Amino acid sequence: MVLLGCMGEARAEDGYALWMRYVPLEPALAADYHARLADVVAPDQTPTQRAAREELRRGLTGLTGSPPRMQADASQASLVLGTPQSSTLIAPFRAEIASLGDEGYLLRRTRMGGRDVVLVAARRDIGVLYGVFHLLRLLQTGASLDSLDVRESPRLRLRVLNHWDNLDGHVERGYAGRSLWEWQTLPEWRNPRYTDYARANASVGINGTVLNNVNASAQSLAPAYLDKAATLADIFRPYGIRVYLSARFSAPIELGGLDTADPLDPAVQRWWRDKARDIYARIPDFGGFLVKANSEGQPGPQDYGRSHADGANLLATALAPHGGVVMWRAFVYAHDVPADRATQAYAEFAGLDGAFLPNVILQVKNGPIDFQPREPFHPLFGAMPRTPLMMEVQITKEYLGFATHLVYLGPLYEEVLRADTRGDRGGATVAQALSGMAGVANVGADASWSGSHFDQANWYAFGRLAWDPQNAARAIAADWAAMTFAPDPEVVQPIVGMMMASREAAVNYMTPLGLHHLMARGHHYGPGPWVDGGPRADWTSVYYHRADRAGIGFDRTDRGSNAVGQYAPGVAAMYGDLARVPEPLLLWFHHVPWDHRMASGRTLWNELVGRYSQGVSQVQAMQATWDSLQGRVDRQRYAQVAAFLRIQRREAQWWRDASVAYFQSVSGLPLPAGEAAPPHPLAWYEALQFPSAPGDGR
Amino acid sequence: MVLLGCMGEARAEDGYALWMRYVPLEPALAADYHARLADVVAPDQTPTQRAAREELRRGLTGLTGSPPRMQADASQASLVLGTPQSSTLIAPFRAEIASLGDEGYLLRRTRMGGRDVVLVAARRDIGVLYGVFHLLRLLQTGASLDSLDVRESPRLRLRVLNHWDNLDGHVERGYAGRSLWEWQTLPEWRNPRYTDYARANASVGINGTVLNNVNASAQSLAPAYLDKAATLADIFRPYGIRVYLSARFSAPIELGGLDTADPLDPAVQRWWRDKARDIYARIPDFGGFLVKANSEGQPGPQDYGRSHADGANLLATALAPHGGVVMWRAFVYAHDVPADRATQAYAEFAGLDGAFLPNVILQVKNGPIDFQPREPFHPLFGAMPRTPLMMEVQITKEYLGFATHLVYLGPLYEEVLRADTRGDRGGATVAQALSGMAGVANVGADASWSGSHFDQANWYAFGRLAWDPQNAARAIAADWAAMTFAPDPEVVQPIVGMMMASREAAVNYMTPLGLHHLMARGHHYGPGPWVDGGPRADWTSVYYHRADRAGIGFDRTDRGSNAVGQYAPGVAAMYGDLARVPEPLLLWFHHVPWDHRMASGRTLWNELVGRYSQGVSQVQAMQATWDSLQGRVDRQRYAQVAAFLRIQRREAQWWRDASVAYFQSVSGLPLPAGEAAPPHPLAWYEALQFPSAPGDGR
Repeated sequence: MVLLGCMGEARAEDGYALWMRYVPLEPALAADYHARLADVVAPDQTPTQRAAREELRRGLTGLTGSPPRMQADASQASLVLGTPQSSTLIAPFRAEIASLGDEGYLLRRTRMGGRDVVLVAARRDIGVLYGVFHLLRLLQTGASLDSLDVRESPRLRLRVLNHWDNLDGHVERGYAGRSLWEWQTLPEWRNPRYTDYARANASVGINGTVLNNVNASAQSLAPAYLDKAATLADIFRPYGIRVYLSARFSAPIELGGLDTADPLDPAVQRWWRDKARDIYARIPDFGGFLVKANSEGQPGPQDYGRSHADGANLLATALAPHGGVVMWRAFVYAHDVPADRATQAYAEFAGLDGAFLPNVILQVKNGPIDFQPREPFHPLFGAMPRTPLMMEVQITKEYLGFATHLVYLGPLYEEVLRADTRGDRGGATVAQALSGMAGVANVGADASWSGSHFDQANWYAFGRLAWDPQNAARAIAADWAAMTFAPDPEVVQPIVGMMMASREAAVNYMTPLGLHHLMARGHHYGPGPWVDGGPRADWTSVYYHRADRAGIGFDRTDRGSNAVGQYAPGVAAMYGDLARVPEPLLLWFHHVPWDHRMASGRTLWNELVGRYSQGVSQVQAMQATWDSLQGRVDRQRYAQVAAFLRIQRREAQWWRDASVAYFQSVSGLPLPAGEAAPPHPLAWYEALQFPSAPGDGR
Repeated sequence: MVLLGCMGEARAEDGYALWMRYVPLEPALAADYHARLADVVAPDQTPTQRAAREELRRGLTGLTGSPPRMQADASQASLVLGTPQSSTLIAPFRAEIASLGDEGYLLRRTRMGGRDVVLVAARRDIGVLYGVFHLLRLLQTGASLDSLDVRESPRLRLRVLNHWDNLDGHVERGYAGRSLWEWQTLPEWRNPRYTDYARANASVGINGTVLNNVNASAQSLAPAYLDKAATLADIFRPYGIRVYLSARFSAPIELGGLDTADPLDPAVQRWWRDKARDIYARIPDFGGFLVKANSEGQPGPQDYGRSHADGANLLATALAPHGGVVMWRAFVYAHDVPADRATQAYAEFAGLDGAFLPNVILQVKNGPIDFQPREPFHPLFGAMPRTPLMMEVQITKEYLGFATHLVYLGPLYEEVLRADTRGDRGGATVAQALSGMAGVANVGADASWSGSHFDQANWYAFGRLAWDPQNAARAIAADWAAMTFAPDPEVVQPIVGMMMASREAAVNYMTPLGLHHLMARGHHYGPGPWVDGGPRADWTSVYYHRADRAGIGFDRTDRGSNAVGQYAPGVAAMYGDLARVPEPLLLWFHHVPWDHRMASGRTLWNELVGRYSQGVSQVQAMQATWDSLQGRVDRQRYAQVAAFLRIQRREAQWWRDASVAYFQSVSGLPLPAGEAAPPHPLAWYEALQFPSAPGDGR
């Protein structure tokens, strides 16, 4: 009868289960957990309470091989879930959990009525659900419960996915199939996948989702689509996830028939007020709007001579009575190409600090350009003390090889969260400046959600770091690997090794030493350091690398664009000083002669070529590690990862060869000893075209 | 340990397994089959032999609960597979299977060495595989094997899916997610789904697949894409499936850098010859090209003053040395809007009969317009005796409510295959005129393959009817329902009832009585009988329905466009005579006064309104039938079908109301007694916009 519940053998490990596979633990451990936890006392009066019970049932059944016994009788309890309101067993802990906030929880082994008991206690139901996921993570990773005593509450209030999903199902910069949202069959059809999406998010504490692309269609705010969004909100609500929508600033014109979207126009203000009321009638806990305005062709308040604050406050006023927020993106740049694109968002927004209503949050990308393999932290994180800030990162890998390159982003997120905004080691980190994090989602309708098995780790790591930016990328990787593959050190350690090295590998074979924005035009697939011309200088590669016969790099010191001047003095002094700037950011901030002597003793030119080759070697090392895991990982996932690593190896070599060919054509220097010449002339690389590369904007 | 192989409970019945679920039969039957079939003697020397063994192993294990024993020793055999070459047990049947052709097979219960044995015998390995699928179908439907004696061979040589898949993953007129073909990760990653696709096709005898859209990109013929296609061909080959490509006629310009694609130009001829050689070097059994030329903006031979025969023969000459064919589409229409679009393909091609090389096959749509809910058969099927013809049908439901409407197309295919091209009951059916069938695929990356569970039946029925056009749509539906849901008459009968009524329901609520092409512009989602204006008259609705105050319908008699004159005299006489034309085609061929008396005794106007309402009632009846199956169908599929029926019900009502509102505005007549007025004024329906409706061409 096994087959009855188990169609499609070939898909058994297709990645759909994510890190919530709940496969049987080794027998002794399973028996121990079962003995400790099998008698569950848990409330079931609310949807969230039922979600927690159901997750526990699913997890314990899978992990221990036996379903837990759901007890009504408190004297039978070995595992107790609840809040002071929902459980008389938890009520005595009211004081102890008072400081945990609305989303926190306590996990504790204790004695109760003479029995050894594990508690999952929280002030609200959602905290209990989060606690259940935490407990299940401990079991999945084989942790001891002997001295269990965990108090957790999120450090950031807003932990939000941004879906760049169009209403026609295309996902901009998506590499995991079509949009998860099946608009055509909503609201009637509630795909069970929506619930699994909510479970996955809740398991890492993500508490919001923006359903539609920041390059928004006004249609998303039309009644038919609001009804569809409301159905999703109903499905997500038990999992603590609020729905948000990207709002097109000109919607009062397109949907409302007005002749202006001027934020100071009373009719426009009324339109947004009415629209907010319509939305909240359908979605009482609607989160609010995300807005991309006056950027890359999107409409915005500047079309009417108004400021970003005028625009944001217009929407904030409409949402405020209902408790909604406006997440206003700082990723804007002027129609006129500036001297340095990196300075633009700061120039636009730093002066508006204090001008926003309290329910406006400014959403700032992690770096001042655009989700590059490495950027310095965005200067706005140190510059807007009176404005709530969110950090926007990409989980999807637009500039990092798409889904086929194994690049674990935990170290990237960690690097920027821990960056010191004052440069005085006084603890003023980027993380300290944040009220939330937004991650541009990498999930779609692909069986594996993320288009690759390893990209699931980036979704996971985003959630864990948004919950607590002090989490360590390496520890997160270890948890993920244990849950996703197997809680066996001989599996986890090599996988964590691959993951932790992977981001540096990509930096090396794409954009070493602070180079950036060298990808092919438009789709960003593959190398394009030669990209020049076109509509805007700041959409080219040569604008950013500025290589010439003498040297390479963007002079952002006070002798150049003075982008360093947007940082606090301690930071500016470091970045602006050729002797002190960290080598990984060297060419971001400095134009440097080819014969500049690097820490390694090599010239810059030799170092640059060496880094490109090192990137390829690092991918080969990942392949060797993965090969060693054959037989320890199920066949289907093993095969896909191996195939994707072959693609990454081929493309890393392409990146290295094309980049070396190009930069050599500029520097005119010979390759360092031992470095192979690119197999094709530069023109061959330049001629490659990929009109159907995935994920392009349309 | 059940869970180990069985992640994602929620997806257990997500439709991925199609009609090859192989779930356990009821115990007595399972035991009987096991007793009869468990000792298998089957060759395993070729990929196709191994595919047959593996399918048998998978099927018998699932259906009977026990794996078969693969025996080397002939004296142990109870089930014997093979060809005279591959099996000494089958060799004695050489003469008996000589007439079955390369794809046929014999299934027989017989005695062998004193044992009761079932044979699956064929001349070639692929016949054995087809025979295994036939045998498994018998088991899945609970058939008796007592007097098993089946001889099958396909009546049509070419049984081909046409994928309208673009290289960027968008599927034109696709309602089942992105393209199955993951071009970005080919050739490295061989998604196991490709093999399951091949299994599904082989199970119904489909032996070819055109990978890319007829609105083709020349890139499909570039080396990088040929390498990817070759990998798919390698995966499909063991299942008897050849790969074909849609060829863009101007590829010699776009890829080859020539300044012409003139079929009489020697450089063009050389380019195609070289291209064919490149392809066959990668894909030795490449099937050939499908071409849409000089139609809807596609390039073609007429751009150079040459004929369709010149164009087709150019490619046929290039392919002939390698054994490939050209499938040349007859769906062309002139840039100048004709008096009657229905006459255009005939006008273009009938005179070319005999002008094509032998390896050209003309691919003709089932009807003279474009995959409408009902059309008369295409007049070319009776007009080109010297030209091999394929019939092209849509499996995807561009004009039939997309994936969300339950419309079983078996009756539509059957109706046209059985149509009498001479009108003399002499057996000259459309099926007799065919060398093959092409089905525009309805599959994509959705878990369910087809975007809905019931649309799987259309893929299935296409294959079964292409194998043998004399198969009955009802029997095919019964087989499908038994395999897909359960071999239980209390499940099968109601489902077959729904399926067999469903196409008439759609005709009624969309385009009753011979009306056609009334869908909204472009995406064809929902009603648009008012569509007028725009670039071409024959892209409007009013062009086709010609409704006015006096009456409705397109006069295609000899007093009108004389489209009837393209049919044989016996057919023309029937269609052209208002007294003899079948009522389902009335308004296709005649402009009829509103007060025309119908067979029912009602006036045409009253009949028309009545049919619209009847369509809605028929959907309600399907809902009631489905409701009665609750508990007999697994929860997930039950829920999705129920949700989709709710959508269909809502949209059928919308079709009825909008159409009645529109036609009443033209006829000026009162609604028949008992007919409800549309709830909105006509302008409301006309104003609805669906810019993100799926599947649109781009």
